[in-house]
Amino acid sequence: MNFMNIAGGGVTSAQGFMAGVAQAAIKKPERYDVALVYSMVPAAAAGVFTTNKFQAAPVLVSKKHLEQGMARGFVINSGCANACTGEQGMADALCMARKAGEIIDCPISQVLVASTGVIGVNLPMKKVEKGIAEAGKTVSPTGGNLAAQAIMTTDTFAKEYAVSFELEGNKITIGGMAKGAGMIHPNMATLLGFVTTDAAISSACLREALREANESSFNMITVDGDTSTNDSLFILANGLAGNQAIADPQTPDYQMFVSALKEVCVELAKMIARDGEGATKLIEVQVVNAPSLEDARLGARAVAGSTLLKAAIFGEDANWGRIICALGYSGAQFVPELVDVYLGDLQMARDGGGLVFDEAKALAILKEKTVLIKVDLKQGSAMATAWGCDLTYDYVKINGAYRT
Amino acid sequence: MNFMNIAGGGVTSAQGFMAGVAQAAIKKPERYDVALVYSMVPAAAAGVFTTNKFQAAPVLVSKKHLEQGMARGFVINSGCANACTGEQGMADALCMARKAGEIIDCPISQVLVASTGVIGVNLPMKKVEKGIAEAGKTVSPTGGNLAAQAIMTTDTFAKEYAVSFELEGNKITIGGMAKGAGMIHPNMATLLGFVTTDAAISSACLREALREANESSFNMITVDGDTSTNDSLFILANGLAGNQAIADPQTPDYQMFVSALKEVCVELAKMIARDGEGATKLIEVQVVNAPSLEDARLGARAVAGSTLLKAAIFGEDANWGRIICALGYSGAQFVPELVDVYLGDLQMARDGGGLVFDEAKALAILKEKTVLIKVDLKQGSAMATAWGCDLTYDYVKINGAYRT
Repeated sequence: MNFMNIAGGGVTSAQGFMAGVAQAAIKKPERYDVALVYSMVPAAAAGVFTTNKFQAAPVLVSKKHLEQGMARGFVINSGCANACTGEQGMADALCMARKAGEIIDCPISQVLVASTGVIGVNLPMKKVEKGIAEAGKTVSPTGGNLAAQAIMTTDTFAKEYAVSFELEGNKITIGGMAKGAGMIHPNMATLLGFVTTDAAISSACLREALREANESSFNMITVDGDTSTNDSLFILANGLAGNQAIADPQTPDYQMFVSALKEVCVELAKMIARDGEGATKLIEVQVVNAPSLEDARLGARAVAGSTLLKAAIFGEDANWGRIICALGYSGAQFVPELVDVYLGDLQMARDGGGLVFDEAKALAILKEKTVLIKVDLKQGSAMATAWGCDLTYDYVKINGAYRT
Repeated sequence: MNFMNIAGGGVTSAQGFMAGVAQAAIKKPERYDVALVYSMVPAAAAGVFTTNKFQAAPVLVSKKHLEQGMARGFVINSGCANACTGEQGMADALCMARKAGEIIDCPISQVLVASTGVIGVNLPMKKVEKGIAEAGKTVSPTGGNLAAQAIMTTDTFAKEYAVSFELEGNKITIGGMAKGAGMIHPNMATLLGFVTTDAAISSACLREALREANESSFNMITVDGDTSTNDSLFILANGLAGNQAIADPQTPDYQMFVSALKEVCVELAKMIARDGEGATKLIEVQVVNAPSLEDARLGARAVAGSTLLKAAIFGEDANWGRIICALGYSGAQFVPELVDVYLGDLQMARDGGGLVFDEAKALAILKEKTVLIKVDLKQGSAMATAWGCDLTYDYVKINGAYRT
């Protein structure tokens, strides 16, 4: 489906959302590192979180706050993940929520908290509190872009996307921002995503919609196979669009909403993959004609995540054997002797065996900024797409000295 | 246990084994790329193989030949993996076995075949056949070292290890060679291992001993998370040591044999990890006091395999949060609030939270060629060790242009 893209849109595109930022020097001076985003009115809220057994304090706090299905806003910092920080970390995360709640004028339980950065270090709370207060003074309905900047760590560009569509005469807007860069892997790696919408929708439907959208977007990207302690994807829906509240997943309205939400999440996820640490290329892997959706997803993610393939694509080497190899250890069900592999529109393998192909044409495809790999399992009708990036010298450089 | 290490020993250290090599110019000229290793007399034989769904032709042939539990020798080539090569590939692998069988003077079914190199390319059989014939002319009881060289691909050094011990008055020798470098991951990634021994042992016991030794050695190393199409670990036991045949896994003789075999396999596996593509350091990860062996292994492998940690160790950055993070997504059962983390003998985290530590001391530990990481789960008595290597610029360089 195609929805109307809102140029430059993001987390404050939907009606009634405000954002403010501050430079709190949490890790480095002179950069935005605190953001406050909230709705003018109470909103239905949902979230999905990291599967890592170590869950950062803000994740634990936000999960608890989401139990009621309603929230007012997000308070976010970059530069310190507040993970593996014990009781002090919990106290700090709650303190962030309290401080933000004072500004938004809502109970602490209606504030969702997110942090990203180094693990195992306590937040410099004096700076953070001051930053939240400052962010509160700068809030505006056009603050989305600065907020997207404030949540960046090693990201090289701010990630925002927004769409609008009509639902029975009411214009609905969904917008979001995300940060990624390193530690990105299926099952929600160090990734923060914040989506806001003015749609009216029940908490239960919103939760289901976010789960669905996440499965085919953020859960289908991989940068380095590491699943972080802090991943969180949130959504707030404040109902200001005035549509009749979506309350049943079996309705066309719900389907329309979830399609639009998927588009926002997929576009944000692709930006994260493209901006993987040190990356120069986006790798898009489609697995088609798979026996099941799960097989398609397993296969696509394994290929997009293969370290060897990522290095080959950086080197513009049409090493299709590494595609086959990754598929083979993915856990997906398929018949090796049936598999076809394409690089762009160039077929590299048929029925599990290599073809003689035009090296010059392969090189031209590999020189593009986006490299499309298609694997046809010829054994069913399910399909899935995963996104990754190439592995470069700069990835090693960035991660060889991240903490220091 | 400590066994007598045989300096410079390898695949021809045990009595009655011969090896020969040839330069067949399979991928590049002027390097050894064909090896023939065999026993003067029939031997009990066993193997473990890749779990990749795409299995290279030599893997399929060797598996079949091992069904009888007896074999005479190995024929091996580097430079071409003979994987994803369809019926032609099967014919070529069988042709290698036939050619070697003519030299050894044994049925084709008693020859085990292994190939390593580029996937999806057919073997240049004229060169390979000529190479096997030449290798046959050079066989000698001291040919082990050249054979270890002939199986290398991007390996920077030949990997050999041998030990001897006494079993009721008989001297038993176990020696082996291996190749690794890239595509190394638990569950047998592109790794070839060949072990020979003059012990007398039943095929059934040999199979069980190899499985056991493999679990705590080759299955505990990781270079890049890619599991290849060609991994094979073989053992031949020809009985020339004259000991009473080991025929029961419940005996002290069997336990002694399996301990010695483990030592050989662990030493070869560590060489592979240390020589991971582009690696400058060996990373040894011990998980202790785990609830079960499986939990210990899952945890140790995930930490050793974390791309982010590998890059941090290359950069000599004591980013212990990445150890915790990898443990958290490993699938191992443990209580996050109990976990202690050590870098060498320096404690970095206690009860899941970070400690203030001496950065200078941490840096000194990280500057060593072998970096030891210990994770204490404080929740049981199982332990496991995994080995990996750092992620460097050279890994990217090597794999960016491997095929071309």
